[in-house]
Amino acid sequence: MIIGTVVGSVVSTRKNENLVGNKFLIIEPLKSMRASESNIVAVDNVGAGIGEVVLVALGSAARIGCGKEEQPVDAAIVGIVDNGTELE
Amino acid sequence: MIIGTVVGSVVSTRKNENLVGNKFLIIEPLKSMRASESNIVAVDNVGAGIGEVVLVALGSAARIGCGKEEQPVDAAIVGIVDNGTELE
Amino acid sequence: MIIGTVVGSVVSTRKNENLVGNKFLIIEPLKSMRASESNIVAVDNVGAGIGEVVLVALGSAARIGCGKEEQPVDAAIVGIVDNGTELE
Amino acid sequence: MIIGTVVGSVVSTRKNENLVGNKFLIIEPLKSMRASESNIVAVDNVGAGIGEVVLVALGSAARIGCGKEEQPVDAAIVGIVDNGTELE
Amino acid sequence: MIIGTVVGSVVSTRKNENLVGNKFLIIEPLKSMRASESNIVAVDNVGAGIGEVVLVALGSAARIGCGKEEQPVDAAIVGIVDNGTELE
Repeated sequence: MIIGTVVGSVVSTRKNENLVGNKFLIIEPLKSMRASESNIVAVDNVGAGIGEVVLVALGSAARIGCGKEEQPVDAAIVGIVDNGTELE
Repeated sequence: MIIGTVVGSVVSTRKNENLVGNKFLIIEPLKSMRASESNIVAVDNVGAGIGEVVLVALGSAARIGCGKEEQPVDAAIVGIVDNGTELE
Repeated sequence: MIIGTVVGSVVSTRKNENLVGNKFLIIEPLKSMRASESNIVAVDNVGAGIGEVVLVALGSAARIGCGKEEQPVDAAIVGIVDNGTELE
Repeated sequence: MIIGTVVGSVVSTRKNENLVGNKFLIIEPLKSMRASESNIVAVDNVGAGIGEVVLVALGSAARIGCGKEEQPVDAAIVGIVDNGTELE
Repeated sequence: MIIGTVVGSVVSTRKNENLVGNKFLIIEPLKSMRASESNIVAVDNVGAGIGEVVLVALGSAARIGCGKEEQPVDAAIVGIVDNGTELE
């Protein structure tokens, strides 16, 4: 998993029907966890908002244990990080 | 997922038979979401066209929920992004 | 998927028995689709040869729909690209 | 798998319920095994602690054989490395 | 798959019980196949030794067809490369 900050959201009216109901957030990984320019889009599972530091699961993990087994998603916010400031 | 712009298409007459019927588009990821020179080829699920900003699912997610479980694809366009301009 | 040129082949006498019968080709991704120095080895599904421009599926997709479900492969040539020159 | 040093831990009170009970550690890959700035977060399976050199499985492997098949995790510490010093 | 040279081995006494019996080798990818500093650890399936040039399967492929379906491994040596010198 990686840790990043929620920096934006994505609006998509026309999309795969299995994706309806998801909130798509843009994550900027912590500097220590990124190559340059490597923001990603993740679906939200925990009620995250802009500016929060979150834990993101990548790949098939994003569909496991989240009730999203039939959704074409490859990144999911799976936790809010309490000690984000000290991890910067 | 990543967001990118559709910049071209791929023509392939001789291909795996499970791929017949797919439209293959070339995606240039948004600058904030790419390493340098990292275009990819994705199959289209939503009727995207050249110049549109799209949401792309990568890895096994590209086969899930899209009726492509038996196709050798690793990237799929799963949404058209409405607010692409502000995400540039 | 990515697009690349077949630039060589790999000979392996001693290998996993499930790999017997495969042709292993070395793919150099198109400049627009690669980080520097990122050639890969892919098994051939479509009868590709040296110098041809091909479509390559990565990850678990390489085993799907190709009759290779029980083979330890992570990259497969799944199409010959007709318009490779214009994509360079 | 990669080898890295445990350099920190992540606290997350609000998280996916399937993740409850996990210890989340931050791994800094060995210099020979990383691109720049590529720390990751892994769940601990072997009782690792800060400063230890560990073996980390990535992707779906992190859920296999660890009793975590239903957890959204993509990286797991699966061994303590005895000869870490000579591998630096 | 990628091709690399076996440059070392990993000793791990305390590890996931499903990993017992594996030999862990460090692979340095061929220059044409690597980003800088991107060695990985792979389990050996073919009896490879230090200095040999090998074919390595990555991701879920490392568990397929190798009798390792229940092991947390993400990279496996699946062949010895005969023409490694000419591929350098």
